[in-house]
Amino acid sequence: MKHIVGYRCTICGAELPYDERMTCPRCGEKGILDIVFDYNYIKKGFSRESLAKDHNNSMWRYAPLMPLKPRDFSPFLRVGWTPLYPSRRLGAELGLRALYIKDDGINPTASLKDRASGVAVAKAVELGYDTIACSSTGNAASSCAGNAARMGVKTVIFVPQRAPEGKVAQLMIFGAKVVSVKGDYKATFDLSKAAIEKYGWYNRNAGINPILTEGKKTVALEIAEQLSWQPTDWVCVSVGDGCTIGGVYNGFKDLYELGMIERIPKILGVQSTGCCPFVDAAREKRGLIPAEENTLADSIAVGVPRNPVKALRAVSESGGKWIAVSDEEILDTMRVLGRTEGVFGEPAGVTATAGLRRAVKEGLIGSDETVTVISTGSGLKDVKNALRAAGSPTLCEPNLSALDASGIL
Amino acid sequence: MKHIVGYRCTICGAELPYDERMTCPRCGEKGILDIVFDYNYIKKGFSRESLAKDHNNSMWRYAPLMPLKPRDFSPFLRVGWTPLYPSRRLGAELGLRALYIKDDGINPTASLKDRASGVAVAKAVELGYDTIACSSTGNAASSCAGNAARMGVKTVIFVPQRAPEGKVAQLMIFGAKVVSVKGDYKATFDLSKAAIEKYGWYNRNAGINPILTEGKKTVALEIAEQLSWQPTDWVCVSVGDGCTIGGVYNGFKDLYELGMIERIPKILGVQSTGCCPFVDAAREKRGLIPAEENTLADSIAVGVPRNPVKALRAVSESGGKWIAVSDEEILDTMRVLGRTEGVFGEPAGVTATAGLRRAVKEGLIGSDETVTVISTGSGLKDVKNALRAAGSPTLCEPNLSALDASGIL
Repeated sequence: MKHIVGYRCTICGAELPYDERMTCPRCGEKGILDIVFDYNYIKKGFSRESLAKDHNNSMWRYAPLMPLKPRDFSPFLRVGWTPLYPSRRLGAELGLRALYIKDDGINPTASLKDRASGVAVAKAVELGYDTIACSSTGNAASSCAGNAARMGVKTVIFVPQRAPEGKVAQLMIFGAKVVSVKGDYKATFDLSKAAIEKYGWYNRNAGINPILTEGKKTVALEIAEQLSWQPTDWVCVSVGDGCTIGGVYNGFKDLYELGMIERIPKILGVQSTGCCPFVDAAREKRGLIPAEENTLADSIAVGVPRNPVKALRAVSESGGKWIAVSDEEILDTMRVLGRTEGVFGEPAGVTATAGLRRAVKEGLIGSDETVTVISTGSGLKDVKNALRAAGSPTLCEPNLSALDASGIL
Repeated sequence: MKHIVGYRCTICGAELPYDERMTCPRCGEKGILDIVFDYNYIKKGFSRESLAKDHNNSMWRYAPLMPLKPRDFSPFLRVGWTPLYPSRRLGAELGLRALYIKDDGINPTASLKDRASGVAVAKAVELGYDTIACSSTGNAASSCAGNAARMGVKTVIFVPQRAPEGKVAQLMIFGAKVVSVKGDYKATFDLSKAAIEKYGWYNRNAGINPILTEGKKTVALEIAEQLSWQPTDWVCVSVGDGCTIGGVYNGFKDLYELGMIERIPKILGVQSTGCCPFVDAAREKRGLIPAEENTLADSIAVGVPRNPVKALRAVSESGGKWIAVSDEEILDTMRVLGRTEGVFGEPAGVTATAGLRRAVKEGLIGSDETVTVISTGSGLKDVKNALRAAGSPTLCEPNLSALDASGIL
């Protein structure tokens, strides 16, 4: 592929040819790779002007920046090109110059992970695999199963026995072969790894396959384009294993290298205080150590992040910050975002917005600045916590005088 | 408004000026009104060519065909312009010449009802109301609450005490005032009616407000435009109170009157055998009589449809058919649509596709014909029934030999 130079290991910096390998042979499984693009080549056919003429309203409009061979992407699920809403009320309440909300819950399987899974499925199809495997109980798994089903690619999904049955149901509706593993998440991951090696399936495990970051980056490309190539001063992202924030940075970096934006936004990485290995490491100026996974924001409850290098780089190289918020702040932000903007996010989805509210309170983000928050998944993914956030309605006898006396109105 | 001639009563045919009234003064509450457009006026500024130049990827691109004054719709939620997928496998399995799936679950609150609520909220804003009310526990209520929250319009939603708490939670997240009425649905509706009269809120009760049909019709406009103005021979729609199917017909009728399509597709109205007053009436060649509401497809469990005239007209004038499917066929179609196309619909959402499968089996739709099915809501709206449809995965010990012996692969 002419638009790709090769791989570069995020740990040792070794440069490698672009092939089917996924990690650095010297550094092993932790040696996650960057894909190095030839921007001078890409520039020839990809620009602000070429995009202005492109009516494709999906992430596939950015295919020239994906590590894929050119092809017709119309048979795939329509991932991306999600709404970027100018804030109607929350931005003013926080005293910000401008606030935008990127609602990535409006994706085919209702989360940002469709971006990664869409690109992974396209790569599996390109390489001729008939099966994709991954171990996860959440948005990665459901997006993998949905995007693969559309393309007639089989999926084998490994979930720990304790996986919530609602999430498992979604996988089975998409026709995935679901392996419910008697054991914890580590046992599940290890069995998936052994099975992938034995059966030669395409590997969609996040934090191993470098292509996933290159799908997630499209959310940054969209933010920039939807803001007419003038992205906000800050972009706020919730952080679990680090792949998404790494992708957001990669997207802005691509555009900067291509001369399509003038500066990379500062990235605010937001975690829950119940599980914040990145925030702890930044505060104590040390490397990451395993953290407890004690938060209701299950999609970002990752005690041992699998993509630390890309995540740390996103914040440090963009001049951003790390911040943590409590579960109470997350639940409160579910209500605030719903009430003020009409956006219903899952707990991990609204965590970035909770982080913005705290960052404003702490003076990290000032009133002269502009901000984009990414909501990474739909609130319908986690109705149990929506119930916790929302509370119960007041009962009312069926007559007008009871309604008037109820205090509801 | 120059593009509107007035109202016409669907029962007595009386012509009335276009104002804030919602039903016919002579026929009372059952006298649902049609909005009569001046197609010659509309033609001047609205055509295939004007749309081809319009980059707005939402239903607001069709504002010239809505009963609204011209305005900037960008502050509203981005409703519509949902994907129309060419079938990858199901169409071939059914032996059809072509099959398309319109996935209307990809809307801001995850159902087609956003189209109706978006237009209702725009009308309330246009008329200066600060509060919208509706009685419902389902997609109408959540779409009303979400679209209104975005625009800073208050909502009062009346739900019966037995309403599922998950759906109530979504309403409360959007900041709606939720009145949980001690009583059944009729008591709930009656209290909402009395309160709307007393407090003068804007009325979003379906089957009363004629504007709702004019929002829902945009799904037909999109299907036609996404198929380059050559809609399929058939369009299949699930039917509850009749507003949606009435809207689908209105949309195609508009385009036909404007000379933008050459014929109106035949409309297949699909109900559940557990609640099928339209299908029974068509088979027995009589008027509608109240039916039991005994189906798991809760969004179309309507024993006394509030919009019978528009629904009956949609099927008869298009040369279509009525058909009913069992709950088992609905659950099976959830799996089929997920597995073959990567589309996860709620039970009522996939009912149209279940109806297509039965219509092909019964020879109502032939292999030389082309078909579009509308999936009206996301499967995440009803995880309980997804679980019933999907079944449980097989447990596996955490080792490769157990996996090989499990029969899962």
